[in-house]
Amino acid sequence: MKKREFNFEIMTQIKERWSPRAFSSEKIEEEDINAILEAARYAPSCFNEQPWRFIVAKEEVELAKMLDILTPQNQIWAKNAPVLLLILSKKTFELDGRENYWNMFDTGTAWGYLSLEAQRRGLITHAMGGFSKAKASEAYNISEQYTIIAVVAVGKYGNFNELPDALKEREVPETRKALDEIIIK
Amino acid sequence: MKKREFNFEIMTQIKERWSPRAFSSEKIEEEDINAILEAARYAPSCFNEQPWRFIVAKEEVELAKMLDILTPQNQIWAKNAPVLLLILSKKTFELDGRENYWNMFDTGTAWGYLSLEAQRRGLITHAMGGFSKAKASEAYNISEQYTIIAVVAVGKYGNFNELPDALKEREVPETRKALDEIIIK
Repeated sequence: MKKREFNFEIMTQIKERWSPRAFSSEKIEEEDINAILEAARYAPSCFNEQPWRFIVAKEEVELAKMLDILTPQNQIWAKNAPVLLLILSKKTFELDGRENYWNMFDTGTAWGYLSLEAQRRGLITHAMGGFSKAKASEAYNISEQYTIIAVVAVGKYGNFNELPDALKEREVPETRKALDEIIIK
Repeated sequence: MKKREFNFEIMTQIKERWSPRAFSSEKIEEEDINAILEAARYAPSCFNEQPWRFIVAKEEVELAKMLDILTPQNQIWAKNAPVLLLILSKKTFELDGRENYWNMFDTGTAWGYLSLEAQRRGLITHAMGGFSKAKASEAYNISEQYTIIAVVAVGKYGNFNELPDALKEREVPETRKALDEIIIK
């Protein structure tokens, strides 16, 4: 099993963050939910457009509804998460109605900030692309003006041993490409 | 002048980060450049694809070349920055060659991590959409497989008084929408 390697000193939250699946079903504080959204809110964006939008599921009925848009493979573990967030972004600029080329990029930055504030608060996060955009669109009656991007599970780490065997094998921080591979000369 | 308001305790780097224009021309350490790229490297991404790519300009000739792709309005202040980064992302998955719907989103997360590690190191960053993608593509001979996203200036804070008057007025952290405005019920 390869381990993550750090060649330079970087912030603890970035070093220690990964995307676990063994969520505890324990509820998290309302304060924590608001604070991670506050972190997302302060991300930078083109023309300060702030294209990021969130649908928050935290009550039982809301969670069941959001769980339903996930792929079966994600439902297996995400069913324990006490909070699920659907991330959307607005496709056009409020300024002039033109297409916002950077809307997904800027919303990715907001998700990054959210993930690190969660980490700082001892919470785990796991973003999923494995869900049905069609189901999401229908379930939440999402307007055409938004890009439907990802579902994020937020909560506390639970019990590794309760994961199905196939997921136990994957329950480890993934490594990364070398710095050389992401720098174009 | 409106001030930023924080209703919840969030990490210092997020609270204090903004996008200044008064860059000092003072060089930054090679260690700092590598560490902020290391932070970007550890962002999460769909299938751990890591679509983010960076072209780094730090020598005089490289900086002049990258400055040349910026809009004149950005050149005015970005000319002082000791480091300019061009952010690209790979459009397809290595796994199966299919379109990566999340490529800009994931690369936005990497930029978010980079911006906070820079902040932790006392550096300032300013991402710009104001540049010519056509010029960038030609100057760097960028393959069609990459989305050309943004140029980021990285450096130390310089002298406010050296900014042109029009930019002095804008040299202040921008406020944000209320939390209510980014949460869809």
